[in-house]
Amino acid sequence: MINVGVIGVGYWGPNIIRNFDAYKETQMVACADLKQERLDFIRRKHPALRTDTDYHKVIDDPKIDAIAICTPVFTHYEVAKAALEAGKHVFLEKPMTSNSAQAEELVELAAKKKLTLMLDHTFIYTGAVQMIKKFLDQGELGDIYYFDSVRINLGLFQHDVNVIWDLAPHDISIMDFLLQLKPESVVATGADHVGKGLEDVAYLTVYYPNNIIAHIHANWLSPVKIRQTLIAGTKKMIVWDDNVPLEKIKVYDTGIIVNRTTDEIYDTLIQYRTGDMCAPKVPMTEALSTEVAHFVDCINSGKTPITDGVAGLNVVRILEASDQSIKMRGKEVKLS
Amino acid sequence: MINVGVIGVGYWGPNIIRNFDAYKETQMVACADLKQERLDFIRRKHPALRTDTDYHKVIDDPKIDAIAICTPVFTHYEVAKAALEAGKHVFLEKPMTSNSAQAEELVELAAKKKLTLMLDHTFIYTGAVQMIKKFLDQGELGDIYYFDSVRINLGLFQHDVNVIWDLAPHDISIMDFLLQLKPESVVATGADHVGKGLEDVAYLTVYYPNNIIAHIHANWLSPVKIRQTLIAGTKKMIVWDDNVPLEKIKVYDTGIIVNRTTDEIYDTLIQYRTGDMCAPKVPMTEALSTEVAHFVDCINSGKTPITDGVAGLNVVRILEASDQSIKMRGKEVKLS
Amino acid sequence: MINVGVIGVGYWGPNIIRNFDAYKETQMVACADLKQERLDFIRRKHPALRTDTDYHKVIDDPKIDAIAICTPVFTHYEVAKAALEAGKHVFLEKPMTSNSAQAEELVELAAKKKLTLMLDHTFIYTGAVQMIKKFLDQGELGDIYYFDSVRINLGLFQHDVNVIWDLAPHDISIMDFLLQLKPESVVATGADHVGKGLEDVAYLTVYYPNNIIAHIHANWLSPVKIRQTLIAGTKKMIVWDDNVPLEKIKVYDTGIIVNRTTDEIYDTLIQYRTGDMCAPKVPMTEALSTEVAHFVDCINSGKTPITDGVAGLNVVRILEASDQSIKMRGKEVKLS
Amino acid sequence: MINVGVIGVGYWGPNIIRNFDAYKETQMVACADLKQERLDFIRRKHPALRTDTDYHKVIDDPKIDAIAICTPVFTHYEVAKAALEAGKHVFLEKPMTSNSAQAEELVELAAKKKLTLMLDHTFIYTGAVQMIKKFLDQGELGDIYYFDSVRINLGLFQHDVNVIWDLAPHDISIMDFLLQLKPESVVATGADHVGKGLEDVAYLTVYYPNNIIAHIHANWLSPVKIRQTLIAGTKKMIVWDDNVPLEKIKVYDTGIIVNRTTDEIYDTLIQYRTGDMCAPKVPMTEALSTEVAHFVDCINSGKTPITDGVAGLNVVRILEASDQSIKMRGKEVKLS
Repeated sequence: MINVGVIGVGYWGPNIIRNFDAYKETQMVACADLKQERLDFIRRKHPALRTDTDYHKVIDDPKIDAIAICTPVFTHYEVAKAALEAGKHVFLEKPMTSNSAQAEELVELAAKKKLTLMLDHTFIYTGAVQMIKKFLDQGELGDIYYFDSVRINLGLFQHDVNVIWDLAPHDISIMDFLLQLKPESVVATGADHVGKGLEDVAYLTVYYPNNIIAHIHANWLSPVKIRQTLIAGTKKMIVWDDNVPLEKIKVYDTGIIVNRTTDEIYDTLIQYRTGDMCAPKVPMTEALSTEVAHFVDCINSGKTPITDGVAGLNVVRILEASDQSIKMRGKEVKLS
Repeated sequence: MINVGVIGVGYWGPNIIRNFDAYKETQMVACADLKQERLDFIRRKHPALRTDTDYHKVIDDPKIDAIAICTPVFTHYEVAKAALEAGKHVFLEKPMTSNSAQAEELVELAAKKKLTLMLDHTFIYTGAVQMIKKFLDQGELGDIYYFDSVRINLGLFQHDVNVIWDLAPHDISIMDFLLQLKPESVVATGADHVGKGLEDVAYLTVYYPNNIIAHIHANWLSPVKIRQTLIAGTKKMIVWDDNVPLEKIKVYDTGIIVNRTTDEIYDTLIQYRTGDMCAPKVPMTEALSTEVAHFVDCINSGKTPITDGVAGLNVVRILEASDQSIKMRGKEVKLS
Repeated sequence: MINVGVIGVGYWGPNIIRNFDAYKETQMVACADLKQERLDFIRRKHPALRTDTDYHKVIDDPKIDAIAICTPVFTHYEVAKAALEAGKHVFLEKPMTSNSAQAEELVELAAKKKLTLMLDHTFIYTGAVQMIKKFLDQGELGDIYYFDSVRINLGLFQHDVNVIWDLAPHDISIMDFLLQLKPESVVATGADHVGKGLEDVAYLTVYYPNNIIAHIHANWLSPVKIRQTLIAGTKKMIVWDDNVPLEKIKVYDTGIIVNRTTDEIYDTLIQYRTGDMCAPKVPMTEALSTEVAHFVDCINSGKTPITDGVAGLNVVRILEASDQSIKMRGKEVKLS
Repeated sequence: MINVGVIGVGYWGPNIIRNFDAYKETQMVACADLKQERLDFIRRKHPALRTDTDYHKVIDDPKIDAIAICTPVFTHYEVAKAALEAGKHVFLEKPMTSNSAQAEELVELAAKKKLTLMLDHTFIYTGAVQMIKKFLDQGELGDIYYFDSVRINLGLFQHDVNVIWDLAPHDISIMDFLLQLKPESVVATGADHVGKGLEDVAYLTVYYPNNIIAHIHANWLSPVKIRQTLIAGTKKMIVWDDNVPLEKIKVYDTGIIVNRTTDEIYDTLIQYRTGDMCAPKVPMTEALSTEVAHFVDCINSGKTPITDGVAGLNVVRILEASDQSIKMRGKEVKLS
């Protein structure tokens, strides 16, 4: 049995508590939050839980084995570092940190301490993303052409990060998981319509090797909610619509055939191919419950989590580069 | 009665002929094309039409008042220049020319000769775009935040231009018409998956004054056909889906309210507002027939066409800048 | 403060408890169910609630003012009668009873005892139905032509009632509320594919005065879930799709114009009219919470509930007639 | 080469002419129509075609081998009879005749004269219906549960037939072709909102052996256009949406498993099964061109057309029965 403490019980924390509470090999012990009313709210649902406004009380508790951190991004580094130094395994909300130096330090610290550091990149554990990964691993799509994601709605403006830091971590973590490639560089554009220096509409291009290109449209000012990802390959193409309850993933047996051997005129070289579309049944388990089981498995076995600190660092590097690029109107920022 | 000759009767030319043929104040006289089988095809439908493989025969015909040019882009400059110099009014396919210097020259030549030079920016004459323009002119959307357009499908690869030159002229001409603003600069990214140096997936950001941003996603490698444009303003927001037969335009009484007077914490400043959605009935006349009438009206009255040479030049400037930007991975290219 | 007991805590009962628990003027006191595990489940969520397998313990409790009944349909009459005789106000699940004689008896008993008898016709209290009713009351649709409802999915077969008794009470109560007309007769057809004498696919026509016709398609064997209602009138027409999260109601300014004064040939008499479509913003409060407040208001003020016993009886009469009609393959059954 | 005459060149006739004109083994010779302006219209497009206001001129022409009849329904019997008696093969618009006695007579006459009598049940020759038939023939759906079709829109009121005779022949011919079963009886309900005795909203149930039920909703007064057919079987279920350009047919690997061996309580007997959905690529050839080739093949080889006179008669029998049933508010009308 692994004893768990949760730091930060705002919007997402209660879901974390509910899932650690429900899992057979974990036990919720304590939680902390700066706001007393959030602690009161948690106590009404979980009367046995110890609560504290000082998070050090949770970190310093010798009975606690693992800490889940759901605080604002700018505090992640400090809290996670304290938890790791106290010898606790860490389950950390995304994005991992405010910059890549902090993320690298946490990766090293966890390694040195031989502790499990797992990022809560929730989408990776959904049935939809797992199924797309399986198709890619089986080579069903062939070589990848591009990854294109649109994540827009009339959204909750954040007061400390722009729309890329708020919405794109989902897409970036998904494409990092699916492509398993080192990105070369980032180009970001966007606009701030409120005047606080935080873009509310933004476009992010990520260049990968082999002419693979990724693009994310993140937007807090859309009248409609769209959650759509296209992944096209030489053999098949996928449209993933996360807004619909069923038929989320559609696999199109569609594409082009490029005949490279001939040197005839260009437009005879390319043939088009359209075939069946299939929407495989996607399992509907709650991603967070799969994550909790994986976290426990990693702690017990010493395995590296699928979404480890390096996965978190990869996301932060792209976010960090997007900040530089967007301020310079699309200047390419290399990722070394 | 205005006598018309058409040069280039490939994919689009027959529609041009049909519309000039049907209009009461124009009369089709002759057409030219390099391919004899296209001329044969036209003659079967329009037995009275004179046809020739040499386009100069059409341009030099003294009975002809106006020339419609539907040839490949790289020939537009040469053919249009010859037509204008021969004293003919010109109805020119988009994009106008291969570069902005050529476009400027045609604009000047038409002005000097006092001839009508009209660009076939077809979408401007659709019921949908005319209705959106009316909403903007009436101030229904308030101040504009952004223009975002997606034009993707499994497309016909062109052998001389990339996907931006092929698909984006539609969106660029529409946003130029709707916004009526001078763009500041362009950032373009994309990828070529065939290896001929022509991007098949591309993203174009255009910066306008007042924090207005425009973005176009053009793609020949999509498994699904999407033709969707979002236009958001301080008061209302529009979603235009050109793929559906009805309810193409949806106007959302949706937005944010930014309270700039208080200096309290950021996230209390922004309130969200959602209201009714209305899909106004969009008139369904064929755009090309409206264009033909407008062309004739401009010739007769000396009026400047809505889509004049300057409108064509505006599109070419952005296309030209996109070429520079995309080759340098998103480098901002200023439009002076 | 009104003290409430709930009898039957299977699928729907917990929602009833949650809403009576949350409302400021009601207090949950006790609940009963034949299954001990359901009572255990409730007690974990509501530790203060008294539970019993014998429902008479709840009915006989002198501290309890009102009883909510969520048991299987065939028990409604017995339980509701006992509750009314014990002087309790009754909040009764739909359909009201197994036959109209029982429903009439309950209506009379409640009247005699001067107790509130309210049916849980939940949909009547949704923002969508309230908004449609408002449009009808304001005359926006003109005279009604028809009401057509499709309620189909791969459904939970019931073991005591057919698909009409299971799904159509929603639609029947909605059309009774919206039309406020006495139905004349019923025609029902259907098929039983399992062989237990319970139709799993069924079609119900209800004839109303003034050529108004209503039709309901209820189906447990559909591969797709459809919840769509059309209501057409002489002035406007409504499509209500309850499956979508937003834009549930679309009002079409569409119709025909019948010129009755001329006696020219028929096909020149009818003109078609299409106009704007508007989707008004529908309030999203939980219907059950509105119902609880209305129930309390009726108890306190003596008002008749919108969905009173007579509304429940109207639904049962149509269900009962459908049983006769469906067994005789569509024989018209008059409702006197 | 088969020489063809067309009688009736209103809405559909020009398509018939175009297809007989284009096919390599047929040649259009003449056409007739009562309205001179229709004949003028045809002559502008087909200058070589002989035209006449007297249809006997076409029928009596000894050079003509086959007659296509596209006149109003009430004239079909007279014209087709005259054509057959003159020794011509007949391609006949649907519905075949105004009553079943006439249809039977035409079937017999064609048999006696050894002439090809083919009904223009166009949908049977579409890629969609052919594909559904293939699935049924291969047993992919298992045993059929039901056929449910909705064909509604703001429609063109006819002045001589009700909405069932106008729209349902499509669905009836499709279900006759797909099910290949003798229907037992018909129940129809509907309403006439114009007061001419012709229903504009109607519902038709057709009972087949083995508990198979079919239902058609035909409606001229719908604000939205729906063309949707559900076909459910013990193994798989199909949704066919004829309104969309792509993915018209969706095959759901969905259903119930009924365990008939146990006599345990009912609700444990039925298990639900959901799986993948696949939308096979549907060929997009024009149905009418397939029909023309089939008609010629039948004439040349003596084969019976897929949509022969008996198929036409089957449709008329159900239409005729629906007339009786609808006037008596859903009375079951047996088909012997």
